[in-house]
Amino acid sequence: MAQKQLFEINPWTLRTTKLDKENKRLQESLTSLGNGYMGMRGNFEEGYSGDGHIGTYYAGVWFPDKTRVGWWKNGYPDYFGKVINGLNFIGIDVQLDGEKLDLYTDEVSDFELILDMEKGTLSRHFTVVKNNKSFRVSAERFLSVETKELAVIRYQVEALSDAKVELTSYLDGNVQNEDANYEEMFWQEVEQSSDANKGSLITKTIPNNFDTPRFTVSAVMGNRTNTTNETNQTKSLYAENKYHFDLKANEVAQIEKRVVITTSRDFSEVEVLGAGEAILNKLASSSYEELLAAHVAGWRQRWDKADVEIAGDDSAQQGIRFNIFQLFATYYGEDARLNIGPKGFTGEKYGGATYWDTEAFALPMYLSLTDKSVSHNLLKYRHDQLAGAKINAKKVGLDGALYPMVTFTGVECHNEWEITFEEIHRNGAIAYAIYNYTNYTGDDSYLKTDGIEVLTEITRFWADRVHLSDRLDKYMIHGVTGPNEYDNNVSNNWYTNYIAAWTIRYTLQNLDTESKKRFGITEFEIAKWEDIVHRMYYPFDEKWQIFVQHDTFLDKELRSTDTLKAEDRPINQNWSWDKILRSCFIKQADVLQGLYLFHDDFDFDTKQRNFEFYEPLTVHESSLSPAVHSVLAAEIGKYDKAVELYKRTARLDLDNINNDTEDGLHITSMAGSWLSIVQGFAGMRISEGKLRFAPFLPTGWNNYRFKINFRDRLLEVNVAEGDVTIKLCHGEPIDLEMYKENYLLKTTVTIPIP
Amino acid sequence: MAQKQLFEINPWTLRTTKLDKENKRLQESLTSLGNGYMGMRGNFEEGYSGDGHIGTYYAGVWFPDKTRVGWWKNGYPDYFGKVINGLNFIGIDVQLDGEKLDLYTDEVSDFELILDMEKGTLSRHFTVVKNNKSFRVSAERFLSVETKELAVIRYQVEALSDAKVELTSYLDGNVQNEDANYEEMFWQEVEQSSDANKGSLITKTIPNNFDTPRFTVSAVMGNRTNTTNETNQTKSLYAENKYHFDLKANEVAQIEKRVVITTSRDFSEVEVLGAGEAILNKLASSSYEELLAAHVAGWRQRWDKADVEIAGDDSAQQGIRFNIFQLFATYYGEDARLNIGPKGFTGEKYGGATYWDTEAFALPMYLSLTDKSVSHNLLKYRHDQLAGAKINAKKVGLDGALYPMVTFTGVECHNEWEITFEEIHRNGAIAYAIYNYTNYTGDDSYLKTDGIEVLTEITRFWADRVHLSDRLDKYMIHGVTGPNEYDNNVSNNWYTNYIAAWTIRYTLQNLDTESKKRFGITEFEIAKWEDIVHRMYYPFDEKWQIFVQHDTFLDKELRSTDTLKAEDRPINQNWSWDKILRSCFIKQADVLQGLYLFHDDFDFDTKQRNFEFYEPLTVHESSLSPAVHSVLAAEIGKYDKAVELYKRTARLDLDNINNDTEDGLHITSMAGSWLSIVQGFAGMRISEGKLRFAPFLPTGWNNYRFKINFRDRLLEVNVAEGDVTIKLCHGEPIDLEMYKENYLLKTTVTIPIP
Repeated sequence: MAQKQLFEINPWTLRTTKLDKENKRLQESLTSLGNGYMGMRGNFEEGYSGDGHIGTYYAGVWFPDKTRVGWWKNGYPDYFGKVINGLNFIGIDVQLDGEKLDLYTDEVSDFELILDMEKGTLSRHFTVVKNNKSFRVSAERFLSVETKELAVIRYQVEALSDAKVELTSYLDGNVQNEDANYEEMFWQEVEQSSDANKGSLITKTIPNNFDTPRFTVSAVMGNRTNTTNETNQTKSLYAENKYHFDLKANEVAQIEKRVVITTSRDFSEVEVLGAGEAILNKLASSSYEELLAAHVAGWRQRWDKADVEIAGDDSAQQGIRFNIFQLFATYYGEDARLNIGPKGFTGEKYGGATYWDTEAFALPMYLSLTDKSVSHNLLKYRHDQLAGAKINAKKVGLDGALYPMVTFTGVECHNEWEITFEEIHRNGAIAYAIYNYTNYTGDDSYLKTDGIEVLTEITRFWADRVHLSDRLDKYMIHGVTGPNEYDNNVSNNWYTNYIAAWTIRYTLQNLDTESKKRFGITEFEIAKWEDIVHRMYYPFDEKWQIFVQHDTFLDKELRSTDTLKAEDRPINQNWSWDKILRSCFIKQADVLQGLYLFHDDFDFDTKQRNFEFYEPLTVHESSLSPAVHSVLAAEIGKYDKAVELYKRTARLDLDNINNDTEDGLHITSMAGSWLSIVQGFAGMRISEGKLRFAPFLPTGWNNYRFKINFRDRLLEVNVAEGDVTIKLCHGEPIDLEMYKENYLLKTTVTIPIP
Repeated sequence: MAQKQLFEINPWTLRTTKLDKENKRLQESLTSLGNGYMGMRGNFEEGYSGDGHIGTYYAGVWFPDKTRVGWWKNGYPDYFGKVINGLNFIGIDVQLDGEKLDLYTDEVSDFELILDMEKGTLSRHFTVVKNNKSFRVSAERFLSVETKELAVIRYQVEALSDAKVELTSYLDGNVQNEDANYEEMFWQEVEQSSDANKGSLITKTIPNNFDTPRFTVSAVMGNRTNTTNETNQTKSLYAENKYHFDLKANEVAQIEKRVVITTSRDFSEVEVLGAGEAILNKLASSSYEELLAAHVAGWRQRWDKADVEIAGDDSAQQGIRFNIFQLFATYYGEDARLNIGPKGFTGEKYGGATYWDTEAFALPMYLSLTDKSVSHNLLKYRHDQLAGAKINAKKVGLDGALYPMVTFTGVECHNEWEITFEEIHRNGAIAYAIYNYTNYTGDDSYLKTDGIEVLTEITRFWADRVHLSDRLDKYMIHGVTGPNEYDNNVSNNWYTNYIAAWTIRYTLQNLDTESKKRFGITEFEIAKWEDIVHRMYYPFDEKWQIFVQHDTFLDKELRSTDTLKAEDRPINQNWSWDKILRSCFIKQADVLQGLYLFHDDFDFDTKQRNFEFYEPLTVHESSLSPAVHSVLAAEIGKYDKAVELYKRTARLDLDNINNDTEDGLHITSMAGSWLSIVQGFAGMRISEGKLRFAPFLPTGWNNYRFKINFRDRLLEVNVAEGDVTIKLCHGEPIDLEMYKENYLLKTTVTIPIP
């Protein structure tokens, strides 16, 4: 399964001693850093003339790139919102005895690259010979989780014999998006300056024709060295400080580069530079060690709540920690204007800040691992974008709200018709998240206020999107793409029909007189909604006794994925789109996604029958796929399958399983490995307000341990050989269900695994 | 229905006295000229600073524009082949008493614009006042059908009082495609020169990365005037001759501009200019009148064979002549390397030189109206491109040959997945054309040689593209788009299934031992092909007793087009793609296309039932739609419907019915109006080698008369009030069927209309 494993297996680090030029982009993706405010791929500070992708990204900073498609379809968005590559602030040019250091062409030895997930640092060292002299280089950087605007780099060159060293620390705004529609530069210069040990660069996104905001990003750098500043220089979109070191043998040239990034999201354009300088000045008295310690303490706090410990399987351990690390690097809920982009700060592919992944995959994890306010912020984000979702519905000629597939603002900015117009089950995920939050937290205040407004508008969309088929006297939904994007424009996708009817029912259940009045809901609407709930069509096959993915799915040539040859996989890279569409192969859970989300609505046998029919047809080529299957497999007792799929999701990027990690990490799906362990292996569910577990211990593991927040309590679950221990770390006693038995948890409960 | 009618109703001309600045592009499209070798929109010679689209096109000259789509699908073509706007040679700048003439800003009077379809000329005259002096301007041009490389313009300015006039005749290669993917210039300069009364310009398409040929286009101009050449000048991609006239009152400044275009399709790059000069020199002794007379005689010959006379309805008369004129202007079969592009020489939209329109719509008309060699050339074109069609099949992972939706070379260059990969019924049209040619001409020599090779490879494609559905134990075709492009990615489109099975059967019928050996056809293949023919699935509805367009079509909300509001139409301009796809509305004949092509396979009742079900759902928003419906309506006795749909097809562009003629004319569908009259109103069919007619006379028409070639004979059919007269103008006596009765036609037969 693994395509490439670049890093050693270690519980807390990604470490390699190989400067892997052939897999530079993959290495960059995997060593990305982020602090929720900004982030970057694991680019090197010094020159690297080989292939790679220098990418630096700032949360909430984007550009509307004009839509360009082969053939226009009415209703397409005018632009595709791009995550934009922003100014690169890590650069340090290095001259060693008069020769430029270039890690692509220079031979290095003693190379080591380490991403430390516990501390949130990226460090490197290596030895290089230039002009017949040896130099020992080391670099370390972090993006502070204590002061989000701050990035710090410490770069050191030790000369092993007498030599001259020149270090040039710079800010560079000459960056481009690899996926720009017209190879266009999205940035223009505002100003740049450089002064003794200081430089600044302000860039601004170019004008656009779509009335979306322009963004200003300001970088201020302060450089501290053990020499004096030689020259300073600026040019277009660029500022530098240059340093010269005359070193005796074993002396070290050192630069500590501090960069503060401020943007027009938080400050007016005239204030943005000053605000950055103020932050830099405020930290002037703190040493590198102090700044680092505060940052590490921030990560310690996060890990204390969120770490999942696995004893006996370092590969699994590394996988879950890497996923949690990268997810928290992308989003830790501090800013309600942000969301969880599919590539986080690790690449440009897909664009947009928000997919349905947030609600379906990430929200459950944030509910358990972070403060309730974080999940609340994720819901608020959607309520804040309701106006945009209404525009989307109107654009396709329908009532209510259609949440977008891809967006920054609520307005759709994706332009494949089979997705934009058809993958509308996404609207159901937004509704489900309101239920999920309410069910998990037991707090219905959001549901009763903003939530019911969102639900009402989504319900209005569904009510207009269905049609009554005379032939069967049932409501149908034609022209959709289900979660399985390897089949498009189908009729009656079971999952879509189910989540549509569920949304309408849930809305009806939670409407009160006041909200009916508030949203102008008529009796006619209510009657129609009830009729849809009663007469929705759900394709079902009598022979197999399964829900049918869509109307003509069972007419396909049915064959299991084990009949595929190795060279066929992944099929999305080896088959024509024509062949994929016509095949029975499923990209990710579709019917099974419904059985996963609505677990209380279906019995064991139904889950088992559908799983046994659909999973063998599933190629899991969406990063979102394995986790859902893992949870379901665990539920129906297929423990080996559950573990196999856990590994696939946990190490998706680390092992480059889908052969596309070079484009960036699969951020949103990273929550899946946590879901596999907690909902899958430990069987956590919340049904009618009660927390349930039914854990098993994967073969070869000694134990696994995790913590969850649940309704003002902090619980720790430890699944070991033979028994499960649940500890109430904080909060009032609570009723639990363990293997279908009730327990009152006061301090600790230990129960044997049946 | 008519959106806009810019020209007067006249049997032989398009005439207007309005310089219609608001509809300039529409006027340009409608006054396009072509001679099969080159053509151009009806642009003005002198300056026009308002909106318009200057377009000049050279047959077979194209550019591969890199494919750019929102999201790439495996199997897409690398480039989209663009019809390219080439050098503009009609330009004459006019200074009247020192002021530049600009028909956009200047007020003109006595304006007249005439496209003469009988003569193949475009002429204009008008009066304009500049510097308080009046000038009378007239212009006439033609693209010679006698000497295809030759274009001639006569431009005259009469000064009504003493005045200075300056005329600058130029060649201009600074032209761009409106639909270039990157606003790129497709041309680069080779050389330009200007000399006394002479100028030349050679342009060449820019390099491409796709190993497709580059084209060189050379223009040589010779200018004849009643003054002396003042100055000559060249600049990048531009050459001019300038003339100064000192006119007394009522004197005329005249320029006759002759341009000869030669290209690298016929001459090597070093010879191309010399070849053009040689042609120009050869014609030096011919006067304007002589060149024009030869051209008009060429059109006379065409009209003698092809004219359809309608007495009593000038609007219908003008429509059919306009369509025949523009179709012949695009293609008259002289060059087997060419085909019939969807916009001919009238615009850039769609790209490519060939669609299935050629086989399904144009071929039947060329079979009847032109020499057999013309139709043979159309078939040969496809055989010549068999290698490209095999590449297309291979690219989607299938055996055999898949003819492209859009192409110049046989290799697909269209990139919407629902068309490229799915609208595969086009492959059936290529096969059907072989049958059609053989059936019409009675000559099976093409079928037995190249034809059977094409049929074999298409059959191999179908045999690999079907799958056996276990559920029904039938062969099915999933994932297709039928002729109705308002429904995509459907399962078991009846038309596609039918034409696929028909192709296989027809191939099996015509395979002999030698061809089996020649193409390596195994017994296993034969058995599989026979099995598919026997077990193909054809969706049929018991309740309605109709063929079902595709599996879930009848589950749609069914409503007839008369429930649409005026503001909804055309729905492709007013509805979102989502709404269109889900609706029951049909763009063009789909099931009915099958009943039309395979007319002998279905009885009257079947045709009637299906027509009555499907036509009311059809919005006819493809230009190919009305004709097929008109023919079928006539066959089942719905004469008013047949006439209504004839008018729609005959005047589609003249009345801008689909509101898109400004982009260019709907060339390939123009054959449809001829089909409506000959196959529809006159009921012409060839069944088992016998010619049949069953004419009716549309209400209000006095009579209509047309000629056809049929198996070495020339027949004239005259349908008048009360009776039909068929005259054998040339050739041996022939058996005919008239209203199901047999007749032997020796000279003339007159039969009363029943």
